[in-house]
Amino acid sequence: MYLGVDLGGTKIAAGLCDDEGRILRKGSIPTGVGRPAEEIMADMAALCRTVAEGAGVAMGDVAAVGVAAPGLIDPQTGEVVIASNLYWYHVQLTEYLSQDLGRPVFADNDANVAALAEVEAGSMMGAKDAILLTLGTGVGGGIIIDGRIYAGKHNGGAELGHNILVLGGEQCTCGNRGCLEQYASATALIREGCKAAATHPNGLISRQAQGNLGKITAKSVIDCSREGDPEAVRIFDEYIYALAMGIISLINIFEPEYIAIGGGISEAGGYLLDKLRQCVNDHLFYPELPHPYIVLAELGNDAGIIGAAMVAKAKIGQLGMLTQ
Amino acid sequence: MYLGVDLGGTKIAAGLCDDEGRILRKGSIPTGVGRPAEEIMADMAALCRTVAEGAGVAMGDVAAVGVAAPGLIDPQTGEVVIASNLYWYHVQLTEYLSQDLGRPVFADNDANVAALAEVEAGSMMGAKDAILLTLGTGVGGGIIIDGRIYAGKHNGGAELGHNILVLGGEQCTCGNRGCLEQYASATALIREGCKAAATHPNGLISRQAQGNLGKITAKSVIDCSREGDPEAVRIFDEYIYALAMGIISLINIFEPEYIAIGGGISEAGGYLLDKLRQCVNDHLFYPELPHPYIVLAELGNDAGIIGAAMVAKAKIGQLGMLTQ
Repeated sequence: MYLGVDLGGTKIAAGLCDDEGRILRKGSIPTGVGRPAEEIMADMAALCRTVAEGAGVAMGDVAAVGVAAPGLIDPQTGEVVIASNLYWYHVQLTEYLSQDLGRPVFADNDANVAALAEVEAGSMMGAKDAILLTLGTGVGGGIIIDGRIYAGKHNGGAELGHNILVLGGEQCTCGNRGCLEQYASATALIREGCKAAATHPNGLISRQAQGNLGKITAKSVIDCSREGDPEAVRIFDEYIYALAMGIISLINIFEPEYIAIGGGISEAGGYLLDKLRQCVNDHLFYPELPHPYIVLAELGNDAGIIGAAMVAKAKIGQLGMLTQ
Repeated sequence: MYLGVDLGGTKIAAGLCDDEGRILRKGSIPTGVGRPAEEIMADMAALCRTVAEGAGVAMGDVAAVGVAAPGLIDPQTGEVVIASNLYWYHVQLTEYLSQDLGRPVFADNDANVAALAEVEAGSMMGAKDAILLTLGTGVGGGIIIDGRIYAGKHNGGAELGHNILVLGGEQCTCGNRGCLEQYASATALIREGCKAAATHPNGLISRQAQGNLGKITAKSVIDCSREGDPEAVRIFDEYIYALAMGIISLINIFEPEYIAIGGGISEAGGYLLDKLRQCVNDHLFYPELPHPYIVLAELGNDAGIIGAAMVAKAKIGQLGMLTQ
């Protein structure tokens, strides 16, 4: 059995998982961002104990602990190099937790780990080469190659939201311009929805928000598109086109077996998926090859816990091979 | 020893290589595109024999033969699925050659193979995660992950020239718009050079071409930029910016140890490399991480031969491991 811990900006979730990534028991606590890293890590360890005890499992029977953390993680050393939304810099995360818990602890980036979870126990089960694209406030991603997380020499890769799609386009938070994130995130839909509400005050987007731009969400724009509002339809069609071209780029680079769409936007379900698949299929470089499956991610908020547990399992497996 | 064969649209080159990818002897013949595939394959086999005999090596002492071929190759079956500039469709290349030569034969795409060559014996020697970008008439690429060629589930990936950089931009030969190839190829420099010559008939680009747009080459535009012609400087700076943003995207996706620049444009040498490195360094997502090395490819026209030989070596190594 493995413990998976998902360290987020709002809450810390932990779950006890079996070998197949099924969650046997889970729990969560608030992160309390802003406190010293040691306090947060002590809470993480306490949560691990609570979850294991709740399942009637002694910590000694947990083979290893995995942690999904935001930001730049060094999976070799287990250091959180930078996690700006936690205000963490060079925090020795796995060193602390392994001393506290007396178990081997491994860490990796939350988006990478979520991709592994979808391959091990979710929408892309059994795939060797697969990509997860999470469409939320930003656009995140994880790359699985030959069944393992790929994120570059120092884990600085798999920043799929920062593949540049529009040279010189919208300013991105990363400092560059025109990143995919600026066109395929929930933020992009909100931005375009606000523009449309301002130029079309009698349109459905504006009316549903009662003229209050702050009320416009990605969901409200998508819902207005479903209802046929011309501006919302245009915005969502442009959104689908940009996202599809971002996916075409990923297919031209990786030609994976699967691409899963996660994050808040994926809650649009079939309405998103049908349009997206159509647009991607119309623009394939090698239409004669079997097309990559485009699917909705399945694990939602559990992806971090399950992926972290699966990272722990994979690392223990590798260590086992090395010591044989 | 390994034989590497580089099957091109103009010529077929073959070389006998040692374990380290050094060419001991090589030779070439015209491809004679348009002839039946069997005739061309018979010529390839004859060339292999000539090269081996010339080196005083019996075919039986050649461990394996590798072939670098253009287009979509299935490395599992050795089939050339599509090689449009040879007019080849579903040609059983390695099956034919292995029967003719009595040796194991393996094939892969020429750009993928060139990337492997640069890692095994060229500009990126020893790198585990590396990318080759070839800037010629088009933009090609090869991806090395964990020391091996990565090209997707059916070898349809690593089409790095078709990462979309300008949504809705210049029409690309692939059917989509705005691919990197349309901004970072020699063709792009020629296109922009012709535009500038038309609008600035007294500029250096036009004068050097004596008003004949057909004489404008990527090299002539770059040379005019070196000499300070304002239009040529603008074109080359824009070219560098687009190429750098394409490389930034690759770094954000792969964070490789090395990126090598090959193809005709790489002959611009330090003039290209200095500007490119500067522009890439100014736009890194994680400037605090060690920066990927950006280098010029070293193997030039020998990359196909050497890479093909190294594919043969890798495949024989894998088979050896499987049968142990």
